[in-house]
Amino acid sequence: MSFEVFILGSNSALPAHGRHPSSQLLNHNDCLYLIDCGEGTQMRLTQYGLKRNKIDVIFISHLHGDHIFGLPGLITSYILSSRVQPLRIVGPVGLLRFLDVCINLEKTKVPFELDIIEIEPDERPVVLENDQLTVSAFPLDHKITTSGFVFQEKDKERHLRPNVIEEYNIPYQKINGIKNGDDFVLDSGEVILNDVLTTPPDPAFSYAYCSDTAYDERIAEYVKGCSCIYHEATFLSDLEDQAAKRKHSTARQAALIAKKAQIDKLLIGHFSTRYINLEPLLEEAQSVFSNTYLALEGKSFSIS
Amino acid sequence: MSFEVFILGSNSALPAHGRHPSSQLLNHNDCLYLIDCGEGTQMRLTQYGLKRNKIDVIFISHLHGDHIFGLPGLITSYILSSRVQPLRIVGPVGLLRFLDVCINLEKTKVPFELDIIEIEPDERPVVLENDQLTVSAFPLDHKITTSGFVFQEKDKERHLRPNVIEEYNIPYQKINGIKNGDDFVLDSGEVILNDVLTTPPDPAFSYAYCSDTAYDERIAEYVKGCSCIYHEATFLSDLEDQAAKRKHSTARQAALIAKKAQIDKLLIGHFSTRYINLEPLLEEAQSVFSNTYLALEGKSFSIS
Repeated sequence: MSFEVFILGSNSALPAHGRHPSSQLLNHNDCLYLIDCGEGTQMRLTQYGLKRNKIDVIFISHLHGDHIFGLPGLITSYILSSRVQPLRIVGPVGLLRFLDVCINLEKTKVPFELDIIEIEPDERPVVLENDQLTVSAFPLDHKITTSGFVFQEKDKERHLRPNVIEEYNIPYQKINGIKNGDDFVLDSGEVILNDVLTTPPDPAFSYAYCSDTAYDERIAEYVKGCSCIYHEATFLSDLEDQAAKRKHSTARQAALIAKKAQIDKLLIGHFSTRYINLEPLLEEAQSVFSNTYLALEGKSFSIS
Repeated sequence: MSFEVFILGSNSALPAHGRHPSSQLLNHNDCLYLIDCGEGTQMRLTQYGLKRNKIDVIFISHLHGDHIFGLPGLITSYILSSRVQPLRIVGPVGLLRFLDVCINLEKTKVPFELDIIEIEPDERPVVLENDQLTVSAFPLDHKITTSGFVFQEKDKERHLRPNVIEEYNIPYQKINGIKNGDDFVLDSGEVILNDVLTTPPDPAFSYAYCSDTAYDERIAEYVKGCSCIYHEATFLSDLEDQAAKRKHSTARQAALIAKKAQIDKLLIGHFSTRYINLEPLLEEAQSVFSNTYLALEGKSFSIS
């Protein structure tokens, strides 16, 4: 079982200092989800030996170039390499038109099912649900319509206590129900309570992506209790006014959201090109929320 | 005086084997021209220490992704870094719509003059003319409208022979005319012929870019006598049928064009991802036209 996020790019706006625009690869039990896709994302995936073809869903926060300019190239590569499995892309209204113009979807033969879902984050929709995860969107406060995403693991199965199958002669077809909380009734009519048969499940973990956004306390509600969040931290606090004007956050503000939301681990990124050395951003955030890390490219962070 | 082309990317379609999609930087006496702009071109410019801000004109051959997906990012970087000098982009019809959708030109404040010129290559238009160069477009045979470009140096000034200024007492304001072929008339009425005063100018060099295209003998006419051409060579000859079907060329066909056009130097590129080792493509071309080179990324080729 794995739940981790790999940072492909975490610079803001311009590529600089060997840093690249926004993209992350979320690995949940070998299901791969891409979050944002700045220019060159497909090259980063190759560089780090990550299999681009295993990505099934791409989540796009907003339509600024540093979050989407790698998308046409990645999809074109899928088309040219004869991908067969479906691809879903979830993003704001306008995404379809952007891809249509870039790839000329009308005239291009796409050899796989391409499902582009445009969302209104104000409705806080569930944008993906499968056996293991629920992904929901929520609004961020940026210059254009922007979504954050919460990746919430579903409740896991309880663990059977040792030897209970033999002890109570439990048939195979009852086991799944018991792992999900059922009691078990013996032939005699006696009820064996679930607590006797099982121990509690592993905890369900969750990850939230919050970029780009101004400081907005509502975010703390949307991501409350998450195991790990990524929150943009474009500037240091001495540029708090500039951050507000440009609808970005400071490292301190990212940490305040983490603290209010009572999360476990904070990753900060979307660093302004003005910062060659990122340590001051880390120090500023850690002074408010100690369990903070720089979302450096090529690094992987465990969420579970 | 310099005239050279720097290869930023010369792979076809997909980035692979550390190779990137099409882009070249042409340096003519410190005026920089970008030819095509595949994804990641701005990162390549930075990687090689080339100054993206000195590029004044960008030429786009056609609207396939591996030739344009770096353009929105590059222009956005110009916007964000407060570029002031004008930028001209020359390319096929549809370029404006592509950039408009990607950058949202209507709503984005572009702090410099952005001049997007859409051309019909069938008219073989002059797409740029300045003191030193004339650039004209010509049609290539590809799946969509595609232009090649010829960068032709203008005739240069003749060289004054040593000591003629003193010998004939030539006034300063006559010198430019003499360098451009004027005779000189002495006070006595005697005419001193230009040949007595000057030696021939340096030759005018020229570079042609021919990608993407099927084999088309008309190209040899368009680029006749060029000092150097870049011609796509996506496949080896054993895939000539596939090349024709996909409107691409083989290495042998690129060399045939070079031979027919009586050029000096051939660069081949736009290599298919199927080739990890490019030497067979070079050998195939050299067997027809010996002065052929692989347009490898990071390499610079003199045109003069």
